[in-house]
Amino acid sequence: MSVGLRGVAVMMHGGGPTRVINASLAAAVEECRRHAAITGVYGAEHGIFGVLAEDFVDLGRQDSALIEKVGTAPSSALGSCRYRLSDGEYERVFDVFRAHNVRYLFPAGGNGSMVAARAVARFALGSGYELRVIGIPKTIDNDLPETDHSPGYGSAALFFASAVRDIGADNRALPGRVTVVEVMGRDVGWLVAATALARAYPDDPPHLIYLPEQSLSTDRLLSDVERVYRRLGRAVVAVSEGQRDATGGVFGADVRPPDGSLHRMTSNLAHSIARIITERSGIRARSEKPGLLGRSSGAFISETDRNEARLCGQAAVRAAVGGATHVMVALRRVSQSPYRCETALVNLDKLDRARTFPSEWILPGGDVDPAFIEYVAPLAGEVPPHARLEPLRIPRRTVRAIG
Amino acid sequence: MSVGLRGVAVMMHGGGPTRVINASLAAAVEECRRHAAITGVYGAEHGIFGVLAEDFVDLGRQDSALIEKVGTAPSSALGSCRYRLSDGEYERVFDVFRAHNVRYLFPAGGNGSMVAARAVARFALGSGYELRVIGIPKTIDNDLPETDHSPGYGSAALFFASAVRDIGADNRALPGRVTVVEVMGRDVGWLVAATALARAYPDDPPHLIYLPEQSLSTDRLLSDVERVYRRLGRAVVAVSEGQRDATGGVFGADVRPPDGSLHRMTSNLAHSIARIITERSGIRARSEKPGLLGRSSGAFISETDRNEARLCGQAAVRAAVGGATHVMVALRRVSQSPYRCETALVNLDKLDRARTFPSEWILPGGDVDPAFIEYVAPLAGEVPPHARLEPLRIPRRTVRAIG
Repeated sequence: MSVGLRGVAVMMHGGGPTRVINASLAAAVEECRRHAAITGVYGAEHGIFGVLAEDFVDLGRQDSALIEKVGTAPSSALGSCRYRLSDGEYERVFDVFRAHNVRYLFPAGGNGSMVAARAVARFALGSGYELRVIGIPKTIDNDLPETDHSPGYGSAALFFASAVRDIGADNRALPGRVTVVEVMGRDVGWLVAATALARAYPDDPPHLIYLPEQSLSTDRLLSDVERVYRRLGRAVVAVSEGQRDATGGVFGADVRPPDGSLHRMTSNLAHSIARIITERSGIRARSEKPGLLGRSSGAFISETDRNEARLCGQAAVRAAVGGATHVMVALRRVSQSPYRCETALVNLDKLDRARTFPSEWILPGGDVDPAFIEYVAPLAGEVPPHARLEPLRIPRRTVRAIG
Repeated sequence: MSVGLRGVAVMMHGGGPTRVINASLAAAVEECRRHAAITGVYGAEHGIFGVLAEDFVDLGRQDSALIEKVGTAPSSALGSCRYRLSDGEYERVFDVFRAHNVRYLFPAGGNGSMVAARAVARFALGSGYELRVIGIPKTIDNDLPETDHSPGYGSAALFFASAVRDIGADNRALPGRVTVVEVMGRDVGWLVAATALARAYPDDPPHLIYLPEQSLSTDRLLSDVERVYRRLGRAVVAVSEGQRDATGGVFGADVRPPDGSLHRMTSNLAHSIARIITERSGIRARSEKPGLLGRSSGAFISETDRNEARLCGQAAVRAAVGGATHVMVALRRVSQSPYRCETALVNLDKLDRARTFPSEWILPGGDVDPAFIEYVAPLAGEVPPHARLEPLRIPRRTVRAIG
């Protein structure tokens, strides 16, 4: 393997966009420009679809200032996809790579993208085509193993913690009801757990957090909500979109999409939970589903997340030019106070499982352990509480007749 | 009526909180401090409930810097309520007012609050108790008549336009689906119409806007969505929470809350629409319901909205000290370019209807007229588009085999 391998680099996005995937992209493009071995920088449009269709945008010829600006935008500037190559399509991918002398492939994505990257890397090896494949981690779900966390998670954590804080302020101003907030994160609890960052005052939300790693029965839900409601006269419940009911089914999954799979894309989880609360406990409940905003909202970006996304993009290119392949860039926490992460490389073969929320960070009642708060706080950044008035009460002067 | 009427001022919030109701509060409190006639400033906790229960927080003794800080927070620092006084409760209200020599009442709210304010003002008049009642406009729905617009609307418009922009960026990155965004605004279309501010590029969302002023049939919905989908391979639909179906019912209102009313609190409109699209057209659809975030998100504040909220709070106090009563502060647009509004006073008797979205601003296809964009743009402030890459394509070099 020649360190000086000359050829084109392809950037590619897979799966759901995040707030900072473009930051990784911008940093990787800028780093490519510093290396003579990289003869061009292509962006595959809509991930592997762009490779199959030979739809590439020329990233090398984009204005540097524009690349910087695109790097600050949410969502994926290249477009993404959810697609797994069929066996017959690998030849096509490599025909395209050969035609353009693509020698560096930088797929940014989560578990699915890394498994796909591994398959491409193996095919390259098997066919004797020298290709360096370096994955760039990206997932709001934070379920990639072998890394302290993934770029995209911190900003999504900031979004959902801020959402719960703000919805909680509304719930406090207009009590007498329960608000159920549906949080992204698929089948893992990392994001819903992060809503605990909204807590500053003792009566702050979330008053209940449900992690999908534990099933939830209707009876438990109702007794939890009623307990909080008796204490505060209101409640904010944070629940994961992947939450299962006691039978293992998804709460409120009432639609089968065209492909026949029972997919949460059209599920209705928070509403179903709100309906159960309203019907069964007699407490008025409503649901909120910020949904895609959790990963795409332009207003919520964690500086740590942005910086680390850039770091990962840059490290991927440096590693590739240095001769590495069949790896993903990972983050290693080298210091907690002050917080500091460095990049490392992990073999793609190790990325074969989703990392669930650690059971040791789940308290007996279902809430999250303070050790998790220490873990997540530097990733999301500050979620400052809203100012409250001082409780200076006017002494009463009347005999209270009613109320 | 003596201009120099001496007594306590009571601040009071009614209905749903907004992003800037605390800004009006802070400005009103500060203004009160400048007038010797105002001997104390009380905040009624949870609106009229606080008066009935004699639960007042002393606003006059709060630190000025804290009042300023509270003025920047979303939601209602005093707490709000949705409650209409029964006939028997007016005496109690005035017992409390007499006990504290309350002579100035500043209810901030929407139509419901202004109707309630009028009833209190009339009772005062009828019982010979000198009380100056000045309403401060506040509603994200923008349905107060006799004012150019209401504080709270601009920031909510900014939130929902930004949400549609960001969700649109996600939809563009991962096409092949329809995203239905539910927008607040009750039975009027002012807020859902404002999502048009998200449009910068020709393919930008919202691709379809539905105003509750016009009923929507399933057939029309499906043909609209299919038309957009054929053109773009994706679609973002902005629909109001108050949207009625062709029979006049609310889409997806499947729950009756404890009081028996068919209330949208537990409705499920966007999900119902997404389900109809998925089931009937075969196009995968999902729903987003940012819900309460639209009025409570700390991150979205229009500077114009904040300034005008302050202006209204200040003008209310000045008008009251000057001798006015039985009025609400209104905004009059005195210049469009540059945009500028002044305050005016309108008689509370004129505030007896919700102002719907003007039919002359609804285009034949259902979209909004450019004249509305001119109206709303200065209120919400800028919704800058995200940077996009230049479309510099790499020339193809292969005979395309598949895809």
